[in-house]
Amino acid sequence: MQEKMIKNFKLVVEYDGSAYHGWQRQKNDTTIQAIIEASLKKITGEKIILNGSGRTDAGVHALAQTANFRCSTGLNSSIFHKALNSLLPDDIVIKECEEVTVDFHARFCAKSKTYRYRILNREIPSAIHRRHAWFIRRRLDVDAMRPAAAHLEGTHDFKSFEAAGSPRAHTVRTVMRLDMTSDADGFLLIDIEADGFLRCMVRNIVGTLVHVGLSKLQPTDMIRLIESRDRNQAGPTAPAHGLFLKQVHY
Amino acid sequence: MQEKMIKNFKLVVEYDGSAYHGWQRQKNDTTIQAIIEASLKKITGEKIILNGSGRTDAGVHALAQTANFRCSTGLNSSIFHKALNSLLPDDIVIKECEEVTVDFHARFCAKSKTYRYRILNREIPSAIHRRHAWFIRRRLDVDAMRPAAAHLEGTHDFKSFEAAGSPRAHTVRTVMRLDMTSDADGFLLIDIEADGFLRCMVRNIVGTLVHVGLSKLQPTDMIRLIESRDRNQAGPTAPAHGLFLKQVHY
Repeated sequence: MQEKMIKNFKLVVEYDGSAYHGWQRQKNDTTIQAIIEASLKKITGEKIILNGSGRTDAGVHALAQTANFRCSTGLNSSIFHKALNSLLPDDIVIKECEEVTVDFHARFCAKSKTYRYRILNREIPSAIHRRHAWFIRRRLDVDAMRPAAAHLEGTHDFKSFEAAGSPRAHTVRTVMRLDMTSDADGFLLIDIEADGFLRCMVRNIVGTLVHVGLSKLQPTDMIRLIESRDRNQAGPTAPAHGLFLKQVHY
Repeated sequence: MQEKMIKNFKLVVEYDGSAYHGWQRQKNDTTIQAIIEASLKKITGEKIILNGSGRTDAGVHALAQTANFRCSTGLNSSIFHKALNSLLPDDIVIKECEEVTVDFHARFCAKSKTYRYRILNREIPSAIHRRHAWFIRRRLDVDAMRPAAAHLEGTHDFKSFEAAGSPRAHTVRTVMRLDMTSDADGFLLIDIEADGFLRCMVRNIVGTLVHVGLSKLQPTDMIRLIESRDRNQAGPTAPAHGLFLKQVHY
């Protein structure tokens, strides 16, 4: 018989958020955390708490969300990996499962995260990509969006880009990288890496950059807009279904 | 008042086939043709027959299926284009709508077609791509698949790759092109252009190439297999959800 001991497992999770009310467990709604925890209960017979690297909102996807859970078990990471994937629905996939030192915590140990936002900018929407990109018909001026994005890189108070009604004590964050890539099929990919994100920060940044792309704002307006610390100055919130949590850096 | 006259319109259609029983109108099942015809009836008030370039099976997608319809109308192609896209569900999109000469017929005028088959060959399935690629866990030997594919190019009797129970008088077809492309994310794309396709021909070819990739067949077995004109000699039918009608050439 295998000896039981406290182990700590790190998961890397890909999910299609279309059918879920976000990552975080909730009382009445189906969430990704709740689904994985239910599978862990089936495997171990115990109630297990999963620590995600952070929440993702309803409809947001992940290419590589991370989470960890501790439990007293004789099972190894390979068994957990296979058992979880056999129990989970096909829109949630465990990409990696490894045993880590007991002090690892998916949220507290994260150094930074990268989100990707996908825009489909062409005249006609796409049937295939409809759930995984924000369709914008009007031509975006990406050359104007680039200098606007550059103003956001670095350490700033991002209060203007925080969802209303979610005040945090500190709203200063550091954006290490904000890259934009266009491809021949009409996709515009916006990758943002930061040491932390306020609620809806990526979607509010993208909505504001799109306003620049539509000439509703000038690139230099970003300076004033950041300084204002006023959500009403920035652009609208981009829809959830274009957003992917791409990587959590440790 | 605009004068009504017989016009002929060509459509290019993208669709996600996941929710449909294929292209072709059927008595009891929801099909793409039936959905578009119902929208045309709403626009014109008349029963309109849509000629597709050919059927696609249940679950198969299209990046650019073509179709045409004739009707007596004062409406122009731009009006039809907008009206159709506003009425259709978001998994069916009209990419192009243009008026063509009255003798154009989407099926009879087609010179060739290109299908794309997407395989995801990696250890872990994908939540995001689960409906648009065939997931294969075991490593495929693409270097063996390439010479096998080369045997299929050119003019051959493809009876071994025709779905059972669908005999046609002539089973000779010409494959102009059979390309395979691997990418860094584990996708293997197989593009096949031919002057015509037998029922399930692409999926049976892909299933057979995968058998070569898994060393269940040798590349040179393709010669014997084509000559046998026996469906039982070839590999299994690849699943529908990896297949896309990519282009119809006129």
